Amino acid sequence: MATYNAAPLQKLIEYFERLPGIGSKTAQRLAYYVLNLPVSEAKAFANAIIDAKEKIHYCKVCCNFTDDELCPICKSTARDSSVICVVEDPRDVAAFERTQEYNGLYHVLHGTISPLNGVGPNEIYIKELLERIKDDNIKEVIMSTNPTVEGEATAIYISRLLKPMCIKVTRLAYGIPVGGDLEYADEVTLARALEGRSEI
Amino acid sequence: MATYNAAPLQKLIEYFERLPGIGSKTAQRLAYYVLNLPVSEAKAFANAIIDAKEKIHYCKVCCNFTDDELCPICKSTARDSSVICVVEDPRDVAAFERTQEYNGLYHVLHGTISPLNGVGPNEIYIKELLERIKDDNIKEVIMSTNPTVEGEATAIYISRLLKPMCIKVTRLAYGIPVGGDLEYADEVTLARALEGRSEI
Repeated sequence: MATYNAAPLQKLIEYFERLPGIGSKTAQRLAYYVLNLPVSEAKAFANAIIDAKEKIHYCKVCCNFTDDELCPICKSTARDSSVICVVEDPRDVAAFERTQEYNGLYHVLHGTISPLNGVGPNEIYIKELLERIKDDNIKEVIMSTNPTVEGEATAIYISRLLKPMCIKVTRLAYGIPVGGDLEYADEVTLARALEGRSEI
Repeated sequence: MATYNAAPLQKLIEYFERLPGIGSKTAQRLAYYVLNLPVSEAKAFANAIIDAKEKIHYCKVCCNFTDDELCPICKSTARDSSVICVVEDPRDVAAFERTQEYNGLYHVLHGTISPLNGVGPNEIYIKELLERIKDDNIKEVIMSTNPTVEGEATAIYISRLLKPMCIKVTRLAYGIPVGGDLEYADEVTLARALEGRSEI
């Protein structure tokens, strides 16, 4: 059977298909959408991809994405530079910033220790975290990796490296999510919520 | 509050957000994915967008997308050139081709008549369809617009233009979808399925 998509269109569909969470139907829809854009818009989109890829790199200090030497958070003088919140992913920084409740610095690990996937401690940005702590006047490190097996293991691994440096290492609280329903909470979460109960 | 995304990254996220069906969370995920691609891959993706946009245009005959003067279907000598299947969208051509049951030609309207949205008969590719029918040896036109109010109205409008030209105009059958559940079929569909019943 002859293919009914012209080659350049088929190629664009294939590139969209490679994006995470984009299936073949959605890829087709996105490609057709791009074809219907004005030429200038399509070019601007393509340039945005090249631009982001060329200009964005890791912040020298916290390893978050930035187009400068330092990211705006590390550069800011308004932030509390004695606290570091350690996260797995740049998206987690965005999530914390949205809360508007945290005023310290971050450190992005870009992954978790996961021996099953061949990711050891040297594959993620732990060394850079230790360097920061040596140099700076850090009082607390908040381990904010995900509440998964790998996230937990990574938090414990790093906390063991930090303890001898006389730094307070904390972990995010476990408990029932706000707006959640007790009925649907799993036992482990519920047990943790009970364990971490506080007086009202 | 300072933005935590560097400008080129934010711009890329915004471009992804404009794509249909892509919300802000997904746009962020896609942009981060692109940042993690090798430079060559990201450039190839950007080029695929520009390439598709520059090389793809409408087929001179059927108005489907093609990178040539004629699309492969119009060019093919193996197809039955006496039947035209009229569809709203290039994706519908892809859907028919996947059935491997249709061997005629297509005509892509690129929309439906929709006075509420300011789309009149001259805004879609009806004129081109009439031109084809004047010139060629067309025996049948299968109206395959969507079973929506606009699709129906467009099918009826076009059929009224074609009838005086002594051309057989047909419409896709209505009925229950294969693998569907009678219980969940809406009354209109069920009534149409009953109406169109055939002897077994």
